[in-house]
Amino acid sequence: MTSQARSCCSTTTRSALTEDMQFTIAYDTLVRAGVACTSAYVSADDDSAQDTTSPPLARGSRGISILPDTYFSPQASTPDNFDLLVIPGGAQGADTISKNSHVQHLVRAYLDHNKLVAMICAGALAALTSRLPSQPLTSHPSVKPVLDKDFDYSEEPVVVSGKLVTSRGPGTAFPFALTLVELLCGPHKRADVARPMVFPSL
Amino acid sequence: MTSQARSCCSTTTRSALTEDMQFTIAYDTLVRAGVACTSAYVSADDDSAQDTTSPPLARGSRGISILPDTYFSPQASTPDNFDLLVIPGGAQGADTISKNSHVQHLVRAYLDHNKLVAMICAGALAALTSRLPSQPLTSHPSVKPVLDKDFDYSEEPVVVSGKLVTSRGPGTAFPFALTLVELLCGPHKRADVARPMVFPSL
Repeated sequence: MTSQARSCCSTTTRSALTEDMQFTIAYDTLVRAGVACTSAYVSADDDSAQDTTSPPLARGSRGISILPDTYFSPQASTPDNFDLLVIPGGAQGADTISKNSHVQHLVRAYLDHNKLVAMICAGALAALTSRLPSQPLTSHPSVKPVLDKDFDYSEEPVVVSGKLVTSRGPGTAFPFALTLVELLCGPHKRADVARPMVFPSL
Repeated sequence: MTSQARSCCSTTTRSALTEDMQFTIAYDTLVRAGVACTSAYVSADDDSAQDTTSPPLARGSRGISILPDTYFSPQASTPDNFDLLVIPGGAQGADTISKNSHVQHLVRAYLDHNKLVAMICAGALAALTSRLPSQPLTSHPSVKPVLDKDFDYSEEPVVVSGKLVTSRGPGTAFPFALTLVELLCGPHKRADVARPMVFPSL
């Protein structure tokens, strides 16, 4: 499997942070499917000139310190290089990522090139800031009032609208990640990945 | 809430690693409940004399690099200081942790002091290496053959046997973590923590 997934990881120098579980579940589940994942540190200052040095630790919203694989580089993150762009939640981390103009440009570029874009929890704010056309979408309930005027808002755990995949929170992160596996690698791979994870309902 | 939980994080200098999601889901969910969590780096050489310097990055079984809060120190990890000892899975990480004689001693000390010990996935091997008496227990199916002769093996998602809590894999990590929240903080706190996580079935 040669597909690559880019998973954005956000922080600032203080404490504006990506949700630890949403980031980890998406990354780990995609790796289990054989997808090569790269996590990228998105800084709060919209600066993209840092891609030659190692990024700092990103402190998650519940205090876990994760070392991203790289700085976020708009040039290196294009749909030519990856099949999937993932934007996790965490109120402040999602705010940082969704307000980044380079991320907004990439969201549109991925969809224009028929590549997948996935947003979970408050990460779905990037659909609004990227000015995507009205379409089916979900998010964490806390940001529903910001999104439901501009989108066909759903309360399903995972919503697939063309190449845009959205989901709700940590409690939907497994079906979100497994849906991404299925879209990238097919339903058999989804089943192969889910089985050893021992879900109670399987 | 002043309860503290210690969550063990294991690696070696090469690649013997804790399962990324099981570690993160337990830590993050307990923090959401107001439980002060400390993750500890358990080295493969059973050495406990490193508690005064910062631990190295721990590379999880699916490649996420996490900075533990501290080195594992048997002296600092006693049941006088924490209410819960968590041992996550990940085949090689669980092997490292479960073979550590200081961890084995602590598992028995926590239970002797009526404090909680939680093991998930291959982490349940620590019940065997710590020579706990036969009692209800579950684990990842891959290590069932090692455990089912010495324990009353169950295939329930979460098994509570006195103060020993065991579970099966990433797919049972949320009910595992929420059971720990309930045992430490009560059923109302479990419901309060679960609600904003937006589980599909709630």
